[in-house]
Amino acid sequence: MKANAQNHNGDDKISKVVSKSSIRQNFTIRSYEVDANGIASIETLMNYFQSSIIDHCNTLGIHVDAAGSSKEMIKRNLVWVYSEMQVWIYRYPKWDDVVEVETWLSSEGKNAARFNWIVRDFKTNQMLNRASSVCVLMNKLTRRLSKIPVEVRREFESYLKNSRIIIEGDDKKIPKLDDTSADYICLDLKPRWSDIDINFHVNNAKYVSWILESIPESILMNYELSSLTLKFKRECKRDSKLQSLAEVCSDNNNNNNNNNVEYNHMLRSEDGVEILRGRTEWRLKPTNNFDIFNHDPEASIKDL
Amino acid sequence: MKANAQNHNGDDKISKVVSKSSIRQNFTIRSYEVDANGIASIETLMNYFQSSIIDHCNTLGIHVDAAGSSKEMIKRNLVWVYSEMQVWIYRYPKWDDVVEVETWLSSEGKNAARFNWIVRDFKTNQMLNRASSVCVLMNKLTRRLSKIPVEVRREFESYLKNSRIIIEGDDKKIPKLDDTSADYICLDLKPRWSDIDINFHVNNAKYVSWILESIPESILMNYELSSLTLKFKRECKRDSKLQSLAEVCSDNNNNNNNNNVEYNHMLRSEDGVEILRGRTEWRLKPTNNFDIFNHDPEASIKDL
Repeated sequence: MKANAQNHNGDDKISKVVSKSSIRQNFTIRSYEVDANGIASIETLMNYFQSSIIDHCNTLGIHVDAAGSSKEMIKRNLVWVYSEMQVWIYRYPKWDDVVEVETWLSSEGKNAARFNWIVRDFKTNQMLNRASSVCVLMNKLTRRLSKIPVEVRREFESYLKNSRIIIEGDDKKIPKLDDTSADYICLDLKPRWSDIDINFHVNNAKYVSWILESIPESILMNYELSSLTLKFKRECKRDSKLQSLAEVCSDNNNNNNNNNVEYNHMLRSEDGVEILRGRTEWRLKPTNNFDIFNHDPEASIKDL
Repeated sequence: MKANAQNHNGDDKISKVVSKSSIRQNFTIRSYEVDANGIASIETLMNYFQSSIIDHCNTLGIHVDAAGSSKEMIKRNLVWVYSEMQVWIYRYPKWDDVVEVETWLSSEGKNAARFNWIVRDFKTNQMLNRASSVCVLMNKLTRRLSKIPVEVRREFESYLKNSRIIIEGDDKKIPKLDDTSADYICLDLKPRWSDIDINFHVNNAKYVSWILESIPESILMNYELSSLTLKFKRECKRDSKLQSLAEVCSDNNNNNNNNNVEYNHMLRSEDGVEILRGRTEWRLKPTNNFDIFNHDPEASIKDL
C-alpha cells in the first residue's frame, strides 16, 4: 500500500538541486488549474511561483513556513510581500502538461530581495514563461514595511549575493488612472474569505483576478495575456471594496501592427486609496478553446 | 536533467489502481492551498475531489478530457455537473502534509452517477474526510440537463454497477431562506473570470466560497467546517449577481451541548432565482492559527 513512499510520497515534492542557489521542480497542470480556455490560468502560474520559492528556501536549508518566513522572520513577525512583479508568457501549458519551474533568489538593494523563475516544458525544455518579483518585509502586526534586520539578512545573504537575473527592473512609468482616463471601471470587488492567506494577507494571485475583471470579455475570449507588470502600492484590507480601472494604451495603436492589445491598470479602494498599478499585454490566441478536446480519445479506451 | 522522468515526471501523477473500480492518489498540500488558519481550505479539498475523479476515469480507461467528459459525451456536448454534494471533515491536513485520495464511482438511479471519495493521512492511514456527490449530465450548448444516452451509459456502466457507497443520500430537508428568515445576507457577489472553468461553468468549489461569505468572521476565525451539504438547483450564470443567505439552525441550540454551530444556506441571484441550498456544521478549532509555526525550524537549518 505504501510502495510509493520512496518516491517522495508519490507526490510532487521531488526537487532537484541544480546549484547552490537554484532548484528545479515539476508541476503537472491539474484539471481545476485551467481556465475557460483550457490552459493554465495566470493565477495557477503565480501559485506555482509562490510554492516553488518556499520549497527552494527549504531545499537550501533556510527553513521557512508556509508563508515563506524564516526562523528570524517569525521571531519578529515579518513576512515577505511583493512590491513589484513581472511575468512574460510565451506559451501556456495545457491540462496534464508537466512544467519544470526553476527558481532562485538574487540581490535587490539593501532592503529587498529578488525572486526569479523560469518555467519550461518538461518534455521539450522549451521556455514557456519567465518571471521576477521584488519582495520586501512587512510586519504582520503593524502591517508596515520593515528594513531587513541583520539576523534575517544573515539567513539569506549567501543566496542574495547571486546576481543572475532574468528580467531587468521595469522603469516604464505606469500612469495613475482616474474616472476620466479609464476606459473600463469595474466596481464592488471584495476579497472573499477564501482569498486570504495565512498572513491574513490577500494572496497576490488574487489581485490579478481583479485586474482581469476590468478587461472586456471579447479580449478574454479571443486573446491571451502575454505579459504582466504589477507595482503593489498598498495592502488590500480584508474589508476593502475595490475598483478595477483599465485604460487602453493609446500609443499602442500607432506603433503596433501585430494586433496586440495593451492596457494600463489601477486597483483602488472605494475611498480612492491606490492599491496597485499594472500593465498587461495581450496577443491573439494561437488556437481556440477546443484544442484541449483534440487529443485522440481512442488512444487508451479499453474494450468494456 | 531528466532523471525524474521514470518517476512519473517527478510530479504527482502517480496513481495506484487498488481494484477495477477504485484508485488512490496522493496530493501534497501546497503553500497556496492553505487558508488563513494554515490548513487546507475546503476549496482545496473540493479541487482534489474533482481532479482525482478525472484521473480515476483515465486510469480505468474511460478516457476523459480536463472537464471529465468521455468520448461519447464530447460528441454530444455533454458535461457532468454536481446536483448534490456532501463532505465530512474529521481533520484538516496542514501545509506539506501528504493525503491519499481514494476515488470510485457508484450507481445512482437511471440518470445520475455517484462519485465517492475518502481522504486519508498518507503517513498514518487515518481517515481525514469522506465525500460523495451525485452528478448528472448537462448539455454545454443548451445548458439544460440531459438523460444519460445509451452510448455514454455503456462507457461507464461497468463502474456504475458498483454499490459501495460511503455516504447515504441526505434526506434532511434544507428550508428555503428569504430576507425574513435569514440571519445574515451578503449581497453583490459576482463570478470572476477566474471562477469560470473550461465548460464556461462556475467551478463548484467557488459556490462554497460564496457560502462562506455569509458566515460571521468570528465563526470563520474560531471554528472549522466539519460538514457540508450542497443541493445545486440552477447554474450560476457568468453575469449573475448573487446573494448569500445564512440562517442559524435554531433546533441546534436545544439538542446540542458541544458548542457546534449549524447554518442553513441559500444562494440566489439578485432577481430571486434559487441557485443552491446548503447546510454547514462548524466545530471549535482544535488549535490556533499559529500551529503551523510550531514545527522546529532548527531541524534542517544548515550553518550559513
